[in-house]
Amino acid sequence: MRNVSIIGVGLTKFGEHWEAAFRDLVVEAASKAVADAGIEGKEIQAIYGGVMASGRLIGQEHIGALLADHLGMNPIPSTRVEAACASGGVALRSGFLAIASGMYDVVAVGGGEKMTEVASEDVATALGGAGDQEWELFNGATFPALYALMARRHMKEYGTTEEQLAKVAVKNHANACLNPFAQYRREISVEDVMKSGYIASPLKLLDCSPITDGAAAVILCASEKAKKIAPNVEPIEIIASAQASDTIALASRKSLTEIAAARQAAAQAYAMAGVGPKDIDVAEVHDCFTIAEIMAIEDLGFFPKGKGGKAVDDGETELNSTISINTSGGLKAAGHPVGATGVKQAIEVALQLRGKAEKRQVNDAEIGLTHNVGGSGATAVVHVLKRK
Amino acid sequence: MRNVSIIGVGLTKFGEHWEAAFRDLVVEAASKAVADAGIEGKEIQAIYGGVMASGRLIGQEHIGALLADHLGMNPIPSTRVEAACASGGVALRSGFLAIASGMYDVVAVGGGEKMTEVASEDVATALGGAGDQEWELFNGATFPALYALMARRHMKEYGTTEEQLAKVAVKNHANACLNPFAQYRREISVEDVMKSGYIASPLKLLDCSPITDGAAAVILCASEKAKKIAPNVEPIEIIASAQASDTIALASRKSLTEIAAARQAAAQAYAMAGVGPKDIDVAEVHDCFTIAEIMAIEDLGFFPKGKGGKAVDDGETELNSTISINTSGGLKAAGHPVGATGVKQAIEVALQLRGKAEKRQVNDAEIGLTHNVGGSGATAVVHVLKRK
Repeated sequence: MRNVSIIGVGLTKFGEHWEAAFRDLVVEAASKAVADAGIEGKEIQAIYGGVMASGRLIGQEHIGALLADHLGMNPIPSTRVEAACASGGVALRSGFLAIASGMYDVVAVGGGEKMTEVASEDVATALGGAGDQEWELFNGATFPALYALMARRHMKEYGTTEEQLAKVAVKNHANACLNPFAQYRREISVEDVMKSGYIASPLKLLDCSPITDGAAAVILCASEKAKKIAPNVEPIEIIASAQASDTIALASRKSLTEIAAARQAAAQAYAMAGVGPKDIDVAEVHDCFTIAEIMAIEDLGFFPKGKGGKAVDDGETELNSTISINTSGGLKAAGHPVGATGVKQAIEVALQLRGKAEKRQVNDAEIGLTHNVGGSGATAVVHVLKRK
Repeated sequence: MRNVSIIGVGLTKFGEHWEAAFRDLVVEAASKAVADAGIEGKEIQAIYGGVMASGRLIGQEHIGALLADHLGMNPIPSTRVEAACASGGVALRSGFLAIASGMYDVVAVGGGEKMTEVASEDVATALGGAGDQEWELFNGATFPALYALMARRHMKEYGTTEEQLAKVAVKNHANACLNPFAQYRREISVEDVMKSGYIASPLKLLDCSPITDGAAAVILCASEKAKKIAPNVEPIEIIASAQASDTIALASRKSLTEIAAARQAAAQAYAMAGVGPKDIDVAEVHDCFTIAEIMAIEDLGFFPKGKGGKAVDDGETELNSTISINTSGGLKAAGHPVGATGVKQAIEVALQLRGKAEKRQVNDAEIGLTHNVGGSGATAVVHVLKRK
């Protein structure tokens, strides 16, 4: 297998894009990535796109073809992958494998979602497709409800508190204030979170990631050719790519206080990269709800099981603390255009490793990690990135 | 890149499965494929699944996770790909690349669709997502209408007749009578087709592939390990895998009488395989409508452009004639459970190359081809298979 590097990154602003269709968003992100790499579009040999629920949200499937067409890149192969909220991460991994195989030298990976054009109850139904339709959604479970079950159990077993959950949101909003692409660039307080209405107890409105339009794209290249193809870019190497699965229904899981697929993917990724949790300087983790970030920092080995809440409480996950978690603002405050999220995570980490994260720059960031979770944890994708 | 072989195949019967959910169908197909390969499930290292419109048809996304879970294969990575009606072919190609890369030795590839549980107008809307929602479907075009435009143009430019279109359906129904997995195992006559009602002139009911439930699965293996992993199976090698894209909207195409993406993919596949159209003994082509089969046999180089209708008329595509096309009965008569189709095509060709196609066996079949098209031709995937 060949080594693979990120040589270009591009993002739309995350938020409500009433002026732009899905196709407009992905074209913007991809064009920026191509410009960032300093290559020409015709150098790209294949496209992988991560989108979750375009069928229900915009009536559009066949997203791979749509991307190639509107990017002006016919007749190259263009493939959509879907893994619920991990669609972007799986797209990144698909592009990685396509280059690692030797099939291609340069691949574009994109992700996006246009979520605001349908009624909010229809968005909830569409997102529900990430869980088990027959066993969970049909019987009334929503996604906040599934994560609320995990939060309750984490609180009971480890003493995690609602205030600790709130502090995840407070930190991520603070980081988002430093990120020009973030949806919510405003600080909030623990009191703000505690006073926001319950969505599914103990999760309140400000414990939940929002509905977002947006797109993200990266250009991948065989590392051995990066200097020739993009001489003016500092390539960021993907030193590990791992993906794992778990039961789709929460009721079938052995534990409600961890995402077993994330633990599995992390173990594989650390082995592939030859590094451990202590070597990670910066990580983007999947905080679709605040409890998800606490489980993530435990599952990834940054903190012992059950100690995630306390670590947040102690400020150990803040910018330039013990480990900088979700410098972008995370899903919570940067926004969560579902298919874009896994790609956006890689962009944020790549910017950190390039030393180009501006006001939110992590000092001397050399190795970073992305953690992208589908649904309530039935898919998890972990990538490790390194400055060369 | 490593060579890749098919070592196991499994199909459900195609048709209306009122007794089975989507998950039941894919479990049946995958279990049969594992049994056919004579391996144990735990030898499989990754899953790729092709499904088009499960979000709209069964309210379920996150199909990769669903597959891994219900096949009892957690925690291995499991990825859904979507390319409209070419979803199965793209899944096969994803599995191929994952092994070719050296990442895995044994991969399961599945495809399926459960289409009969929603009202037929909802199926039409869901399938419409394969075209351009904003430019075509929103303005009233249906899929039969798009292919009717292509048929009209082919008739005008090349003198193709409605009777020639009808003969495609007649041949495919005759082949389906010999296929125990086919949806419509009954002969029809040219008169039957001509008398069936117009859906979108010149296409009549019996020119159209049906709505179908079904699933298909294959086990892929690195060719160098096939004899060790599946000693009792004759491996069928995938000697080429190619995919191309074109504009998603028909109105943007240069020609209505060919699928440019199929021509592109075919040229790449022939080059990769080191064979030409004359070397192909048997082919499964994407006859979603009868006109599509006529364009396919021209696009694949089996017959000159504009001569496809006459070739069908002359019986040159019948079983054991010049080239045996759609021995399974094709999408038209074997059925078209969208995500399953590209995988089912590979199964039919693999059975032919194994010499196990029973009453529909092509004499001395050594090299076969599959041709899977998404939407009105914005994605095309071509695989070439060979008996070793």
